[in-house]
Amino acid sequence: MTTTRHETEIVVDTEVPMVRIIREFDAPPDQVFRAHSDPDLFIQWNGPRGLEMRIDHHDFRTGGSWRYVHVDGETNEEYWFNGCFHEVRPGELIVQTFAYEGFPDSVALERLVLEDLGDGRTRLVGTSLVDSFEGRDAFIASGMETGVREGYERLDDVLAGM
Amino acid sequence: MTTTRHETEIVVDTEVPMVRIIREFDAPPDQVFRAHSDPDLFIQWNGPRGLEMRIDHHDFRTGGSWRYVHVDGETNEEYWFNGCFHEVRPGELIVQTFAYEGFPDSVALERLVLEDLGDGRTRLVGTSLVDSFEGRDAFIASGMETGVREGYERLDDVLAGM
Repeated sequence: MTTTRHETEIVVDTEVPMVRIIREFDAPPDQVFRAHSDPDLFIQWNGPRGLEMRIDHHDFRTGGSWRYVHVDGETNEEYWFNGCFHEVRPGELIVQTFAYEGFPDSVALERLVLEDLGDGRTRLVGTSLVDSFEGRDAFIASGMETGVREGYERLDDVLAGM
Repeated sequence: MTTTRHETEIVVDTEVPMVRIIREFDAPPDQVFRAHSDPDLFIQWNGPRGLEMRIDHHDFRTGGSWRYVHVDGETNEEYWFNGCFHEVRPGELIVQTFAYEGFPDSVALERLVLEDLGDGRTRLVGTSLVDSFEGRDAFIASGMETGVREGYERLDDVLAGM
């Protein structure tokens, strides 16, 4: 495992019930995009360490949908997530919905923008919008920060091997 | 054309960038739902009067997607809209994304709940969430109120004929 130099910045918006995630990667936008679009790559890094991931479907296209599960190897507990892809622009943008099936009525609208920083580097800016500040704060309290930070550290490793 | 007894209530949220639409119908939830799910019915009432509607696709299911156009009969101007269906629960709930293709980066997360009022009546509560108050207010200024009000008056007529 490599030691990553990049920190994940997680910003809680004060105006609207949104979380903003900012992270740089030492890989060009096309590679960061492919690590999201290709299920064989996506499964290698998404989510926190110590959980096994299985993909039910990953129909990665505008108008497609997705569903996967994280399984706790110790308890065998399963955490299912699903959503639809509103828009996919290769190398640039992913707009999708996101729900944890344990709380299916708490749906987030997620937007992921890839900025080309040149020199084979990318800044990822992700936003997650929900319909209440209480819901947003519960999302943060659920431990999403760990999942996001560890996931992006694992993504560093995947990108290094591409 | 019948004269409708029901008013469409459009509420601007003060806490989050959301519009809430409340409307009663003299039809049970299953019929109101079918007027959304069946493209042959949906096309008869969606949008303001005086525009012709054509459906590109209406894959009305959890994980499906949709796209349609409203055409101004006088100018032939076309207004395309698209989104994906995050979740569809027959007779109860529709959660979808919504975008006007003229502003594809302004995506709304829409939620439509059908409440059974008994006696063959339904209360529809729709919410539309965007990522800024400016975007929400621009959405209202774009004339969405007329489209919603007139659309639901036309839906009254469609339901009366089912």
